[in-house]
Amino acid sequence: MEVFECVSTLSSIRVYEDREADMETIQRVIEAGRLAPSAHNDQPWQFIIINERDRLQQMAKYCISGSFISKVSFAVVVLTDPRSKWREIDTTRAVQNMVLTAWSMKLGSCWIGRLNEEEIKKYLNIPAKWDILTVLPFGYFNENIVSHTKLRKSPEEVFHLNQYGTKINK
Amino acid sequence: MEVFECVSTLSSIRVYEDREADMETIQRVIEAGRLAPSAHNDQPWQFIIINERDRLQQMAKYCISGSFISKVSFAVVVLTDPRSKWREIDTTRAVQNMVLTAWSMKLGSCWIGRLNEEEIKKYLNIPAKWDILTVLPFGYFNENIVSHTKLRKSPEEVFHLNQYGTKINK
Repeated sequence: MEVFECVSTLSSIRVYEDREADMETIQRVIEAGRLAPSAHNDQPWQFIIINERDRLQQMAKYCISGSFISKVSFAVVVLTDPRSKWREIDTTRAVQNMVLTAWSMKLGSCWIGRLNEEEIKKYLNIPAKWDILTVLPFGYFNENIVSHTKLRKSPEEVFHLNQYGTKINK
Repeated sequence: MEVFECVSTLSSIRVYEDREADMETIQRVIEAGRLAPSAHNDQPWQFIIINERDRLQQMAKYCISGSFISKVSFAVVVLTDPRSKWREIDTTRAVQNMVLTAWSMKLGSCWIGRLNEEEIKKYLNIPAKWDILTVLPFGYFNENIVSHTKLRKSPEEVFHLNQYGTKINK
């Protein structure tokens, strides 16, 4: 899939089909994260792939805004290094690489932001030195139920030319 | 360009060719930013396109870690709303969409992180209520001088399977 087609069709998916993803697909998604750029090439991240069904079901208890994780093909728990000044920015670039690469292979995702971080760290043996940025579910979905309408501010509301307040089409 | 090819070849570019970008190309890049996902669809961002040469040259004085901005085809000053809890994450997703879309059209970029924010805000009439996340240069470049070797931590250093510490290839 072409890059612009991918960014312009990407939607958050919360309803998934019951379908496995093979290891080659999973590895391509996480590889897109590993290769992301970061300030000073710090790479302040770690990725835990969850593809066991019972673990995904257990994770649903800790993903407050994403209980649908129990049904996905796999998930990636994205860790970030709290000592790194640019951790949120850098690790988010890795997330966006993964989400877009997955979308280009017909796998949907959705940023899960509200987490019981302490329980997840205990459950997955994550050392205290790491923070969890997000948990990303990945799964196949029924394309017929995805809305193709993007509700976004208009170009006039967010674009300016050569200084703030000058519209492009003036 | 395919998405995975794009994320896996993307490099930061700091030396640019003296070549204009047409408005259609510029609009495709910023559109990739406008369409990015955000928490609660807040869209806590604004984009100022700079394509006048004298302005790019003036901006070079304020872009401490990116004086090469004077030579690029255009730049995007990316504003973010400090009142939004997820501002850095959301706006970085918009940045990564723009950088990848540009790369797929043979335009390089490089996150400029060290800025004289106060001077930029004065120069571009940016209201006090906005923060600047980054200034992104965009320009064509000589592909022969781009390194194709990515220095990244190995998969074994950053990937874990089903819990922290269990390697994928075990």
